[in-house]
Amino acid sequence: MNLDVGAVSGPGRLAAPGEGITTDELALAARNHGLPLEALHYDVTPAGLHYLLTHFDIPAVDAATWRLGVHGRVGSPLAFDLEALRAWPRTTVRVTIECAGNGRARLEPRPVSQPWLVEAVGTAEWTGVPLHTILTEARVDPAAVEVVFTGADHGVERGVEQDYQRSLPLAEAMREEVLLAYEMNGMALPPQHGYPLRLVVPGWYGMAHVKWVRDIAVVDVPFDGFQQAVAYRLRQNADEPGEPVTRMAARALLIPPGFPDFMSRTRVVHPGPVLLEGRAWSGLAPVEHVEVSVDGGDTWAPAVVEGAGEHRWAWRRWTFIWQATVGRYTLSARAADAEGRTQPLTQAWNRGGFGNNEVQLVPVVCFE
Amino acid sequence: MNLDVGAVSGPGRLAAPGEGITTDELALAARNHGLPLEALHYDVTPAGLHYLLTHFDIPAVDAATWRLGVHGRVGSPLAFDLEALRAWPRTTVRVTIECAGNGRARLEPRPVSQPWLVEAVGTAEWTGVPLHTILTEARVDPAAVEVVFTGADHGVERGVEQDYQRSLPLAEAMREEVLLAYEMNGMALPPQHGYPLRLVVPGWYGMAHVKWVRDIAVVDVPFDGFQQAVAYRLRQNADEPGEPVTRMAARALLIPPGFPDFMSRTRVVHPGPVLLEGRAWSGLAPVEHVEVSVDGGDTWAPAVVEGAGEHRWAWRRWTFIWQATVGRYTLSARAADAEGRTQPLTQAWNRGGFGNNEVQLVPVVCFE
Repeated sequence: MNLDVGAVSGPGRLAAPGEGITTDELALAARNHGLPLEALHYDVTPAGLHYLLTHFDIPAVDAATWRLGVHGRVGSPLAFDLEALRAWPRTTVRVTIECAGNGRARLEPRPVSQPWLVEAVGTAEWTGVPLHTILTEARVDPAAVEVVFTGADHGVERGVEQDYQRSLPLAEAMREEVLLAYEMNGMALPPQHGYPLRLVVPGWYGMAHVKWVRDIAVVDVPFDGFQQAVAYRLRQNADEPGEPVTRMAARALLIPPGFPDFMSRTRVVHPGPVLLEGRAWSGLAPVEHVEVSVDGGDTWAPAVVEGAGEHRWAWRRWTFIWQATVGRYTLSARAADAEGRTQPLTQAWNRGGFGNNEVQLVPVVCFE
Repeated sequence: MNLDVGAVSGPGRLAAPGEGITTDELALAARNHGLPLEALHYDVTPAGLHYLLTHFDIPAVDAATWRLGVHGRVGSPLAFDLEALRAWPRTTVRVTIECAGNGRARLEPRPVSQPWLVEAVGTAEWTGVPLHTILTEARVDPAAVEVVFTGADHGVERGVEQDYQRSLPLAEAMREEVLLAYEMNGMALPPQHGYPLRLVVPGWYGMAHVKWVRDIAVVDVPFDGFQQAVAYRLRQNADEPGEPVTRMAARALLIPPGFPDFMSRTRVVHPGPVLLEGRAWSGLAPVEHVEVSVDGGDTWAPAVVEGAGEHRWAWRRWTFIWQATVGRYTLSARAADAEGRTQPLTQAWNRGGFGNNEVQLVPVVCFE
């Protein structure tokens, strides 16, 4: 027998017209999970409700033997154990992180991968060492262009055996709010969120926030690893290089009001004033406005958006009072950022299903 | 328009032959989640990795105004706030809980509901007040037959608007290890696991462990609410009363060894000794033996089972050294309990997809 990684792994593909969610996609959906939308209630997402996407397995890292190396185009290569890293000045940043593949399962044709509907988001208080202080200590060479982060997670994806690796342009890596985080919501990182150390890159989609970081390499040529050059590209066809996926597009989500049916998740409300509330965020310019529609996007009315100027990298709460009367409705919210970007009613398609910010549709029935 | 709960909710149904997972099932899979199987590594499941199944929404209960009432066929009705309940003597029990619908998505025909594959399980240290001390204080009437627990979660299921409610026979409710728990792994319950109070019924499938408990009624006739008499019954046809779902059948799961392919989850190992490990549990008699197969269940060899006599209501760790050689394999483990019950290679079907303990199949490829 002549076996290799090709025996476990195929190329990416698109679902056939009408093809239901496959067992492979379901296995990913059963492992990973979104934010149950009622958890948009919390400013900071409680442990276990934050969305989670793990490419390979969650490593069980032993903090006693874990080490972080910083090397490459630097004047002073560094190495840390966890205790040494925790001795550096720390900071805490509240950050909303959304999976770059959020909304993928609603695309037509559907890219076959983790089948997110709309819920792959969460907000946490991340505490750790600003990355720029470590890079400054290491004395980055003027020839450096990117910083490559390697996680302890290992596997195969589309035929390529790999450690999970991603890079950041040097200017992004030096932003003051980029962290090497060892706490989430005031506790040690849970295993699934990167224990003992993860990268947090405020404003960027989740793929940039490398978990279980064990190695940082400063490089003088752009990184061309799988997760940088093959996956996480915006492209129409498999054979084009595409554009990199970077920052989160503006998005608003609403908490489905009233109460649900178990299977259809359709909501029931009774006539009268109904408080609609949710969250809105953007990784580009700050969110400034949120509008609400109760007719599937035909007409829109402004919501009240809270928290101006606070927590730039976290979602903002918004509210809207809906005077509900008997009938069937489709509720939506849409965010607009300070540079006028907003959300489409119909998502432009790309082959990876990345960067989706189509408006959410919440079916509601109102009766006495 | 003449609208009612029928506008949001239909009857239960079976998937058509070849029908893929529907968007409704996917929406449940995206909200709820299983235990990523590598998390079988931990004796006690870290927060956020324990399986989670919420019928309706996760309530955001305000502990300051929350009250627990105990009433019905009792001599002394009681009411507690959280502080009063925490003043009672507490105990901690390590308990494995598995969803009654685990394995449902592999049945043919597939009951359309939460589409679990095999991962709906977890183990936690639950701390709280033994239920029997509260019932004793309330002086249960000799005519009492059951105890009904009502949660704060509300919704519609198959056309029935309801608070989530389940009952226990009085003898089960009086077992010393049945708890009203307010801590999970030494911390306040997370919202999604029942904050501020949940029932824990060691040995039973998850539907019995009522979350967000706010009311306990002692009754003198068997409870016939939806989750007792309609859902969670073992039946072949929709119109038969069926048998109640109660205790967990014996089951072993193994941690898929080596490393995975992202999409297929097929595993890669290299030739040589491979440590296979996992967990086994049963809600009936204790697990005594675990066997491993590397050929899809044709032949079996005994594993070493740890922790005899410890933590009766939690899973037991087991290990097995597999001498892997180049080839393709299907790995399985199966548990046997002290009364000789074991696991089938092909699951007997029931309409709700409950009580499944079919042996797990883990595809592995071994190459140099």
